[in-house]
Amino acid sequence: MGTAWTESDGGVTAPVGFVAGAVNCGIRSEKPDVALLLSDRDAVLAGTFTSNRLAAAPVALCRERVALGVGRAVIVNSGNANAATGAQGRLDADRMAVLTAEALGLTSEAICVCSTGTIGVPMPMDKLEVGIKGAVDALSSDGGAAAARAIMTTDLVPKEIALELEIDGKPVRIGGMAKGSGMIDPNMATMLAYVTTDAAVDTTALQDMLREAVQDSFNRITVDGDESTNDTVLCLANGAAGNTPLQPDHADWPLFVQAVREVCGRLARMIVKDGEGATKFVAVTVQGAADDGDARQAARAIANSMLVKTSWFGCDPNWGRIYDAVGYAGVQVDPDAIEIKLDDFVAVRDGLVAGGADLKSLEAVLKQDEFTVLVDLHVGRGNDTVYTCDCSYEYVRINSEYHVR
Amino acid sequence: MGTAWTESDGGVTAPVGFVAGAVNCGIRSEKPDVALLLSDRDAVLAGTFTSNRLAAAPVALCRERVALGVGRAVIVNSGNANAATGAQGRLDADRMAVLTAEALGLTSEAICVCSTGTIGVPMPMDKLEVGIKGAVDALSSDGGAAAARAIMTTDLVPKEIALELEIDGKPVRIGGMAKGSGMIDPNMATMLAYVTTDAAVDTTALQDMLREAVQDSFNRITVDGDESTNDTVLCLANGAAGNTPLQPDHADWPLFVQAVREVCGRLARMIVKDGEGATKFVAVTVQGAADDGDARQAARAIANSMLVKTSWFGCDPNWGRIYDAVGYAGVQVDPDAIEIKLDDFVAVRDGLVAGGADLKSLEAVLKQDEFTVLVDLHVGRGNDTVYTCDCSYEYVRINSEYHVR
Repeated sequence: MGTAWTESDGGVTAPVGFVAGAVNCGIRSEKPDVALLLSDRDAVLAGTFTSNRLAAAPVALCRERVALGVGRAVIVNSGNANAATGAQGRLDADRMAVLTAEALGLTSEAICVCSTGTIGVPMPMDKLEVGIKGAVDALSSDGGAAAARAIMTTDLVPKEIALELEIDGKPVRIGGMAKGSGMIDPNMATMLAYVTTDAAVDTTALQDMLREAVQDSFNRITVDGDESTNDTVLCLANGAAGNTPLQPDHADWPLFVQAVREVCGRLARMIVKDGEGATKFVAVTVQGAADDGDARQAARAIANSMLVKTSWFGCDPNWGRIYDAVGYAGVQVDPDAIEIKLDDFVAVRDGLVAGGADLKSLEAVLKQDEFTVLVDLHVGRGNDTVYTCDCSYEYVRINSEYHVR
Repeated sequence: MGTAWTESDGGVTAPVGFVAGAVNCGIRSEKPDVALLLSDRDAVLAGTFTSNRLAAAPVALCRERVALGVGRAVIVNSGNANAATGAQGRLDADRMAVLTAEALGLTSEAICVCSTGTIGVPMPMDKLEVGIKGAVDALSSDGGAAAARAIMTTDLVPKEIALELEIDGKPVRIGGMAKGSGMIDPNMATMLAYVTTDAAVDTTALQDMLREAVQDSFNRITVDGDESTNDTVLCLANGAAGNTPLQPDHADWPLFVQAVREVCGRLARMIVKDGEGATKFVAVTVQGAADDGDARQAARAIANSMLVKTSWFGCDPNWGRIYDAVGYAGVQVDPDAIEIKLDDFVAVRDGLVAGGADLKSLEAVLKQDEFTVLVDLHVGRGNDTVYTCDCSYEYVRINSEYHVR
């Protein structure tokens, strides 16, 4: 099966029946800070969330909504995470849903709420009350781009994508937007992402499929190893395309799954490429591990090593730091079998330095904007891949100068 | 029991019968890169080593020597780790022991070998052959300071200490030196450190005591979460003081144990304070955890979080990042009970922001060179403390510009 879809504009508002709007309500000084996404009819709702045990109030609200399996709208604010805010935080998240529902003439159970930004600051509900009304007034069928901008925090570029494909011979669209940048680690969804589609999809099938797609996309990325309190991926399928509801027995199910995975995978890569201070995109694959768990553990140890990430930033052919990270990852290794490749350059073979005299070639690999690291442990058949970035002065600048107000 | 000892000069050569010497042999351009430590008589030998599964060749050699329980000398080189060097690496480590033994008129089984520096570069044995002879010629009873300098890599300052105390009414000395700086994480010994004493000590008692002292000192520190392939702590006790051999039944055993723990603790703190790019020393304590394991896991998550470390560097009162790290540490938490203090400033109480309006006071805490972070989970009685530093531009500079040759 090839990539039987075409790419289009419009992001989350590309699918039929979705509108979005965004405004600034003063949580952040000037940037837009409230985004609203609305389906003109009930949509099947699926979601995955952070595994952080101090998850924020809106995450608890969204979990309840996803359990209902149906929704109409998502209200998102940036600038305040509504985390570490206790019972009042949950009341504020509920109130955001009520305010949005009232402005749209819906019930609050139809509204999801997401927040991202500083932890431990009470939600400025007076500002949000104005902002939510403004976002409703701003709703537009080409509002996807504005919404993608409003959910950004330290992101430098908005992240959106839309694909068009055929299901039952009818055109179906899938749209997506995401924000990322800091506190990005692949234990779970690890950022905010929204996937919309006008396909009709069975509720359970959508949730199962989303969970797997997230596992292979957002859960494979890491910027700094810090998993947020607010990570959320939501998927809304409103059925406006008029196809027979999709589920695993449907002939076009594999195509639809592949397209959703493409949307999640592309958004996940966009998050890494726009990681705080990132100058390089690196795919780290560990194969030949005792099992997939070992492979994942070793790949994450490499991808989260500050010594490895700073050496990439400096284009330093210091593969010894990758070797060291494999050693402390706690996985089964055979010191005499380990192999390390950077793109096509073999740095280590049979546990020994290979091509050691040719550090110039290795430096050339590292000077690229993108490259791959492949570690073959040669002890089994487990493998996994993690996508990450380097660590630059800019990462330190962003995170030492980002002051709470 | 008070601190019944006095501090003195001389580092590892303060105890009677120990001499040391150091030279440059060209592994590194100009800095001294070979150090030799010698006892004039057999010394009881104890050691602890990295748990990195790709441990370097000299670590394997030292493990064998420690199993013998007795030794005379330690030869250390900086600039080359002799790691990822396979069978040749082990031959080279053995050869270093033989060369040292021949120059000293000893058997090679009496010699420990340690290496620190770049991974994956063959040992320049021709240079070392000259360097070892030079180090023997340089041996001196006040050579401790020179040895402490020769084992440095990216360290900015040498780290040494000496204490004098009374055992059996006789003066006994304990000396120590260490190097650290990068690849420092508390899973194991995590650096090179050497403790000498002229006390007579029982072999098993020395090994058990060293293991516990390391657990509470070097294993509590972290600079960057990267555990080295070469971490080694060695302790040599030569008995020159003429006391009744120390073991747990000896009346002065508690005093001796306390003094060795003081030496290890002081050296460990010196390593953190001289951590790569460090501008602040931070003690992170987690108490009220379900058990000590949970406390350690949460303290390490905070201490190794890049977001937390960069906020400390920026004196940013962003305690939300500490809260987030506790949440993803995988430990039992009660969101409504957690308490976070920085020195005496209560940032979070009962899971809620406390004194939130007074960020200026919190900023004042962070502007100090040293401060403490206390997280009380209020779910049990487990507690642990980890010592760490902030992460600055300088960390990135050192590790992106440190090129292998």
